[in-house]
Amino acid sequence: MQIIHHIKELRQAVRDARASRRELTVGFVPTMGYLHQGHASLLEAARKQCDLVVLSIFVNPLQFGPNEDLARYPRDEERDLAVAKATGTDIVFFPSVEEMYPQPTKTIVSVSGVSERLCGASRPGHFDGVATVVTKLFNIVQPDYAFFGMKDAQQIAVIQQMVNDLNIPVEIVPCKIVREEDGLALSSRNVYLQPEEREQALVLSSALKMAEEFVKGHQGPLKASELQDAVKRHIAQSPLAEIDYADILAYPTLEPVIDLRSVPEFIIALAVKFGKTRLIDNTIIRW
Amino acid sequence: MQIIHHIKELRQAVRDARASRRELTVGFVPTMGYLHQGHASLLEAARKQCDLVVLSIFVNPLQFGPNEDLARYPRDEERDLAVAKATGTDIVFFPSVEEMYPQPTKTIVSVSGVSERLCGASRPGHFDGVATVVTKLFNIVQPDYAFFGMKDAQQIAVIQQMVNDLNIPVEIVPCKIVREEDGLALSSRNVYLQPEEREQALVLSSALKMAEEFVKGHQGPLKASELQDAVKRHIAQSPLAEIDYADILAYPTLEPVIDLRSVPEFIIALAVKFGKTRLIDNTIIRW
Repeated sequence: MQIIHHIKELRQAVRDARASRRELTVGFVPTMGYLHQGHASLLEAARKQCDLVVLSIFVNPLQFGPNEDLARYPRDEERDLAVAKATGTDIVFFPSVEEMYPQPTKTIVSVSGVSERLCGASRPGHFDGVATVVTKLFNIVQPDYAFFGMKDAQQIAVIQQMVNDLNIPVEIVPCKIVREEDGLALSSRNVYLQPEEREQALVLSSALKMAEEFVKGHQGPLKASELQDAVKRHIAQSPLAEIDYADILAYPTLEPVIDLRSVPEFIIALAVKFGKTRLIDNTIIRW
Repeated sequence: MQIIHHIKELRQAVRDARASRRELTVGFVPTMGYLHQGHASLLEAARKQCDLVVLSIFVNPLQFGPNEDLARYPRDEERDLAVAKATGTDIVFFPSVEEMYPQPTKTIVSVSGVSERLCGASRPGHFDGVATVVTKLFNIVQPDYAFFGMKDAQQIAVIQQMVNDLNIPVEIVPCKIVREEDGLALSSRNVYLQPEEREQALVLSSALKMAEEFVKGHQGPLKASELQDAVKRHIAQSPLAEIDYADILAYPTLEPVIDLRSVPEFIIALAVKFGKTRLIDNTIIRW
């Protein structure tokens, strides 16, 4: 496994790999590090599908708001490298902020529509930061496939829209959410949770499960607002949970919808704060 | 010479060329067609430097304002293909608007700073449209080198900034302005000029020449405003000339400058209207 800190070397390594074998495929997993089993599942998917697997670890300042957790975002380089090695990663790209932004960027990639609701509303500028750094990483790595977790379903929708609009020559591969045994979706931010918060954080996945059951057992038209109310009531049972959003939107357009029967697919998307820690989770329901 | 209308075919043609020969270099000349000797000089530069030369002809609606000349922008497919052939172009990429924008784009690439003055101020949204379509074309063609004319000096500054910020793997090659024998910079829009306008349009290049002489003969500090006044007075001699801007800025940052001796390089940039026709020209002076 190669560990590379500089763009120039990374490009050379990918170029060498491509020169070594015709039709070699490159799989790319961009992350912010502090890898958990969710990231490992992306690396495993890349390993299965591609000849060369590149992992990037970069906590991107551009996607954090001024009052967000950039400074305290958890990091564990050693463990990350162990996860990378265990999943058969070929190259770990580990650039510094100075390497990625030698000057503050004047160029911003901005995706309207899909990026405006949910986390886009709660975190202004967040998806511009994501779209811009992902464009940079795609241009640096030039992968054939890029793997993203469905926990950040809106991120996937934004990136897929960007890839389509800008004709970026990469195929986006969405991978399903990995959960703890009790249902909590894996997140690097789970480490922030106090024991009682950790316990009550189960309310996200249990609300989604309840909603799935609710939909399954329901006949006739189903108002998004009705389902949303049920989800919110469910979350309100946890006294430590503070709802940022609990929205139900058409997927992947993320447009509002009144009767859920009028769309083939919709997402129930949650963002809930426990103290300072903001967790997200979602489920996508196809009729 | 291959003429290609679809993105998929274009990609396949470039891929085939690259597969046919190791280390093959691809040169790209993006244009809006109605090719003149200026464009031909870009194609010739690409031909000299690269193994495969790709020309694109696409009048990009995204870079035209609502009151601009999109509908009447001049076109001559047959002559364009003749110019392409004469310069040894390998592939002409000639996509339709539907091929480039199957849906209205939700993704915009925006470059701040360099794009804000000069044509950026006169044509709001213009450089977002340019940056977005050039990103698309770069992603489609994936060239090693891209050739642009210095007549659009600000366009080059915007694109170079974007390439740096987004780590786009392409080298921008600026090529010098090609002029008529009497000094008028070549432009597809020159065809709009009435005979008397054509005659008076010489005032752009003669103002730049005058300014160069002025600078050459000048000792000590030189205020940008002093030179600007001289340029404006020169242009005002032509009764049909209506100045859009006649600005002097540091190059390539396009920042305002007071004493021209304080920067190593500056641009004198002109945009002047004759009736409905807006012409641009510029010169860059290095001390």
